[in-house]
Amino acid sequence: MNIEVKPIGIVHSPHHQAEGTPLQPRWAEGVEGTVEVFAEFAPGLRDLDGFDRIWLLYWFDRARAAQLEVSPFRDCQTRGVFATRAPSRPNPIGLSCVHLIAIEGPMIHVAELDVLDGTPLLDIKPYVPDCDVFPIERIGWYANALGSRTADDRFARGTPNPRP
Amino acid sequence: MNIEVKPIGIVHSPHHQAEGTPLQPRWAEGVEGTVEVFAEFAPGLRDLDGFDRIWLLYWFDRARAAQLEVSPFRDCQTRGVFATRAPSRPNPIGLSCVHLIAIEGPMIHVAELDVLDGTPLLDIKPYVPDCDVFPIERIGWYANALGSRTADDRFARGTPNPRP
Repeated sequence: MNIEVKPIGIVHSPHHQAEGTPLQPRWAEGVEGTVEVFAEFAPGLRDLDGFDRIWLLYWFDRARAAQLEVSPFRDCQTRGVFATRAPSRPNPIGLSCVHLIAIEGPMIHVAELDVLDGTPLLDIKPYVPDCDVFPIERIGWYANALGSRTADDRFARGTPNPRP
Repeated sequence: MNIEVKPIGIVHSPHHQAEGTPLQPRWAEGVEGTVEVFAEFAPGLRDLDGFDRIWLLYWFDRARAAQLEVSPFRDCQTRGVFATRAPSRPNPIGLSCVHLIAIEGPMIHVAELDVLDGTPLLDIKPYVPDCDVFPIERIGWYANALGSRTADDRFARGTPNPRP
């Protein structure tokens, strides 16, 4: 069973390559960009401007092929890919909670953007604490994560293999 | 540009139809189930057992065709679909943050499960506050959401059209 998804829009951002791109919205303070929703889907944006933050679901179109074990950016040993947010996943779907600034027609102005320019957009969902915020204690290897806040090219297609 | 995704597993849950299924994990207290990851992807689960909660990304395989404006479960007027978590989306990808109980081989035992039995699984990500928890104030129409906690059949394929 294969499933087809189609881009509903495209992300415009100042990040043109993995290297130097913030790993997460939290570390993309001050980075603004625009999420363009294709005209046919724009009616679906109604009422979205009432939310402080939105989830972007997108396609990691420049990630190298999936690896089941990866050396994540913020660690120095390999981990199962599903225990990481690395882009080289069996279905390379990215998930970022960005700050919504304003919506003009089909253009969503956002901040804290950690997504590469030109990335195909798959879905947008409102960020709602009832759905998305949970108290937790155990965060696995992230409890000892390294301090890095930006990506390098280890998961970028066309660059040498992942560093050790 | 069309993109192919493939199921990496399947969700086993006590929910067999939309009607009565909790709308979100928060309202699925006590509901346990199993996320089965197909054997070829199981090595990707290493280290996941260190996390209290995980994101499931899955395919709403029994949702009716996309609507750009929907009458969400917890509201009595229509909204743009991207301002809701309704399943009838252009790319019907679901996102649920469930509680991880234990992992045995390719089987992940979870609780607070709001996903229908047999749902195709697309991805798993660890729930990490740095990536997923943000303070916000504005939650749009959810600020006045109705008290409903379970679904009805309004987005279920094969049932009459959405109720007014």
